[in-house]
Amino acid sequence: MEEKIIEKLIGAFMFLPGVGYKTAQRYAYKVLLGDENDVKNLAHTIIEAKEKVRFCSLCGGFSTTDVCDKCRTRISKIICVVEEPKDIDYIERAKNCELVYHVLHGTISPLNNRGPEDIRIKELLERLKTGDYTEVIIATNPSVEGEATSMYISRLLKPLGIKVTRLAQGISMGSDLEYTDEVTLSKALEARKEI
Amino acid sequence: MEEKIIEKLIGAFMFLPGVGYKTAQRYAYKVLLGDENDVKNLAHTIIEAKEKVRFCSLCGGFSTTDVCDKCRTRISKIICVVEEPKDIDYIERAKNCELVYHVLHGTISPLNNRGPEDIRIKELLERLKTGDYTEVIIATNPSVEGEATSMYISRLLKPLGIKVTRLAQGISMGSDLEYTDEVTLSKALEARKEI
Repeated sequence: MEEKIIEKLIGAFMFLPGVGYKTAQRYAYKVLLGDENDVKNLAHTIIEAKEKVRFCSLCGGFSTTDVCDKCRTRISKIICVVEEPKDIDYIERAKNCELVYHVLHGTISPLNNRGPEDIRIKELLERLKTGDYTEVIIATNPSVEGEATSMYISRLLKPLGIKVTRLAQGISMGSDLEYTDEVTLSKALEARKEI
Repeated sequence: MEEKIIEKLIGAFMFLPGVGYKTAQRYAYKVLLGDENDVKNLAHTIIEAKEKVRFCSLCGGFSTTDVCDKCRTRISKIICVVEEPKDIDYIERAKNCELVYHVLHGTISPLNNRGPEDIRIKELLERLKTGDYTEVIIATNPSVEGEATSMYISRLLKPLGIKVTRLAQGISMGSDLEYTDEVTLSKALEARKEI
């Protein structure tokens, strides 16, 4: 009986990214031997976060309300376009000015059968129609797909007379926003170029 | 608001062994973006395991009942002494015969102020008094503390006329002489066997 529960716990932990059997086993033993309050806190926080955190209807980032804190409180003429909600966090830690965001929830990727209509480009155009924004910073990852998405968006926005910029090539090609240090990311924001 | 919940979730994940901020952040995003059923399964399994799994009153291993499955169903004259409940699992996967176990829940460590009365040696003596066992295999780790604990137990049991054995030390399977440390190699030479 106990073996079944422990195996089930190990299996459940393997849901986490990059966690194989051995690591899941270490986590499971920590759960069984660790402080009861810490363990229950982990489980309850997971449930709380999963239940409360949804996507902001405006920017597509994480939010506990219909419109997120940033969209509600910030007044900015610059909108920063990112691939995933978590990318907002990385930009936030590096940026010098208050930005508002727009999360695409993916990239254009013909190989994976994802076209422009599969990511939140239509919603971006809707937001820009209001005329509240003068500049769009495209902060997709410097991957092939991120670059393609960036090019697509810039060609779409140029005729509208909106300044479109891209993060400067301070971030290394083939890397990921998640692993770029804050100083580099900050410099890349400063040196953004019109495309 | 959403930032607070996400930060709380990251903090909760850092309770797991070897998980720093970056890894906890990846886990948190997986929770927020992953399949709802998988996420809730993880949280509920953690709670279920923490509530149901306790220690066996006999061997000290993990159990969902007062006495664990192994202690209830196995008949063995050999008892294997380990440091931690999880060590049972490692032995189980390697062993050829059915053993019963005794978990010490620690080692003797004068530096950390842990004496023989702080680990489950008294309980081991109680079990051996029944006369059901003819051999005790000491499977503590080959660390300084594990060795000291092994020595202490063997001196305690020898006068009782019980056979006390220790896991053999030598070069590990698939290893290379070049990368084997001197102490291990020395032990392997000492314990050489005729073939």
